[in-house]
Amino acid sequence: MKNDSRLIIDGLQYVNWTHGLLQDAKDGGVNAIHVTIAYWENTSEALANIDAWEQKFKQWPDLITPVRCSSDILDARDTDKIGIVFGFQNSSPIEDDIRKVEMLHSRGVRIMQLSYNNQSLQATGCYEEHDSGITRFGKEVIREMNRVGMLIDMSHSAETSTLQAIEISERPIAITHANPTSFFPAIRNKSDDVLRALGESGGMLGTSLYPFHLKQGSDCTLEDFCNMIYSTAELIGIEHIGIGSDLCQNWDYSTLEWMRSGRWSLAPDYGEGSAKNRDWPKQPDWFSSSLDFNNIEAGLAQTGFSPDEIDKVMGLNWLNFFERSFQSSDDLLTESTAATSTAT
Amino acid sequence: MKNDSRLIIDGLQYVNWTHGLLQDAKDGGVNAIHVTIAYWENTSEALANIDAWEQKFKQWPDLITPVRCSSDILDARDTDKIGIVFGFQNSSPIEDDIRKVEMLHSRGVRIMQLSYNNQSLQATGCYEEHDSGITRFGKEVIREMNRVGMLIDMSHSAETSTLQAIEISERPIAITHANPTSFFPAIRNKSDDVLRALGESGGMLGTSLYPFHLKQGSDCTLEDFCNMIYSTAELIGIEHIGIGSDLCQNWDYSTLEWMRSGRWSLAPDYGEGSAKNRDWPKQPDWFSSSLDFNNIEAGLAQTGFSPDEIDKVMGLNWLNFFERSFQSSDDLLTESTAATSTAT
Repeated sequence: MKNDSRLIIDGLQYVNWTHGLLQDAKDGGVNAIHVTIAYWENTSEALANIDAWEQKFKQWPDLITPVRCSSDILDARDTDKIGIVFGFQNSSPIEDDIRKVEMLHSRGVRIMQLSYNNQSLQATGCYEEHDSGITRFGKEVIREMNRVGMLIDMSHSAETSTLQAIEISERPIAITHANPTSFFPAIRNKSDDVLRALGESGGMLGTSLYPFHLKQGSDCTLEDFCNMIYSTAELIGIEHIGIGSDLCQNWDYSTLEWMRSGRWSLAPDYGEGSAKNRDWPKQPDWFSSSLDFNNIEAGLAQTGFSPDEIDKVMGLNWLNFFERSFQSSDDLLTESTAATSTAT
Repeated sequence: MKNDSRLIIDGLQYVNWTHGLLQDAKDGGVNAIHVTIAYWENTSEALANIDAWEQKFKQWPDLITPVRCSSDILDARDTDKIGIVFGFQNSSPIEDDIRKVEMLHSRGVRIMQLSYNNQSLQATGCYEEHDSGITRFGKEVIREMNRVGMLIDMSHSAETSTLQAIEISERPIAITHANPTSFFPAIRNKSDDVLRALGESGGMLGTSLYPFHLKQGSDCTLEDFCNMIYSTAELIGIEHIGIGSDLCQNWDYSTLEWMRSGRWSLAPDYGEGSAKNRDWPKQPDWFSSSLDFNNIEAGLAQTGFSPDEIDKVMGLNWLNFFERSFQSSDDLLTESTAATSTAT
């Protein structure tokens, strides 16, 4: 793989895409985005959302192209498009069927969270009172995701479940969008224990720009955000850090209600908000859209990161990580055997 | 309600019904059976199974009739039919949708287990290593089941989940088919803590005749079984005990595989069996079919139970319990208000 270092890869966005917003991302220099296909959707609903993306690929061929393996991201950059990585924020699309992991992988899905805030059939979500860790079915799903090359994401999962996923998974996992609890003690942010285990196992953290994950929320300063990346790099190593902006754009309140309450509650659940502060939070001024990635690059430079380090955080780490994550274990084995035969 | 004491109600059977097997149940004096509509079935599959029962009601009107409220059981007896109570052994039929509780209640479902061996979206199953108790969604489902009048069954759930369900539910719950762990330490059997909490809250235990739940399995003696009922009555009170035979008949091995492995595992899970002993267990000689309830009645008499006590265990306790369980909370409220106005 050509290892050009100038890349911007966003580890998660949730945007109601228009041509204009994709153009913004392109103008902002974004080369690839992990997009959200599902929160609570079941199999057929998730497949419908995938079909809608297939339509977008046909509608806007000048702007976007699907990413099935990490070299597709380099191709996207070379053809001046944005590479789109399909991901689920919850395991609901596989329903109770282990065989759907492979089926959905064949439909292009490369990333799946094992739970979203609540208990799932595989793992506990971060908003539950008690965390029983990875379930019997969860162990099967991890093995199957490892086999087909679907990246395990524990962004919205609870602590013990996350630590167990790191341990059980034979391949490194990701937390595509969250920050350290030490930076801001949101329920969604992650303890040093989790971050350390993530880094030691070769995993990736996408640092989040969603105001509920930031110190001082919408008023968080660029300097504080970049200092947080600095101290996290000291904790887990800079190779394990990227951006997972969690940028949410162009949705009305009903979408936020769906994200938070799905179909599981008759009364509204306010998630990270509250009854008095229920709406979408306002982005920090220095990161209001995909046009603002240059601000983060400048902030990182100001904080003392070298150009090489900035390249890693902005995209190169995700690229290298996706290269290992999206290959099936069979392909990895073939590669490793080939390497061994060459060596001997 | 007419309180005739001569009734046999089975708190759970899972039978591949034929006219002959229903005739056996009728000949055995059975007045009502809680039948299994689903283990891992999703909404549409469960509805299809309900439709199949509706066909059976049309096909065999001389033998069976649906039970929507407990007086239907008395009507069934008076017209010489077997009353059929619909139940789910798992919460899979409601999928992730709280609104499906009411919908499935309207289709006749009166009993639902919150989990079956594995973790569900509501509660932990008894085969999981860790038990996180009732989940956020689980609390919503319990409230909704309480409202519409759908009985919560924790037969296949784990200890903490069961204790929490008893505590959270505003109406008594049931363990329709299990025995005390003190009788035989099967994973599926229940601790004295659970049984005590169940009895104190007004709940019901259906004692099981499934060999994996019995001391000495298929060789369990009638005397040991009846002594177990005796000691359980001493622990939780005879009003809280019935029969939930868990009688399984006329299924081949593939059905057992479905019960155990559903769609959650690529490799077979042997549940209460093992690779070497994977098949359906042989029933004890003294309870090989629904024709053998008279043996249990005789055994209970031999153990020292009075005729009144035997009537309670064989059916009257379930009848009284179902009377309170299958009414919607609105109806219960109306009744209680009416009683108060009459009293004042």
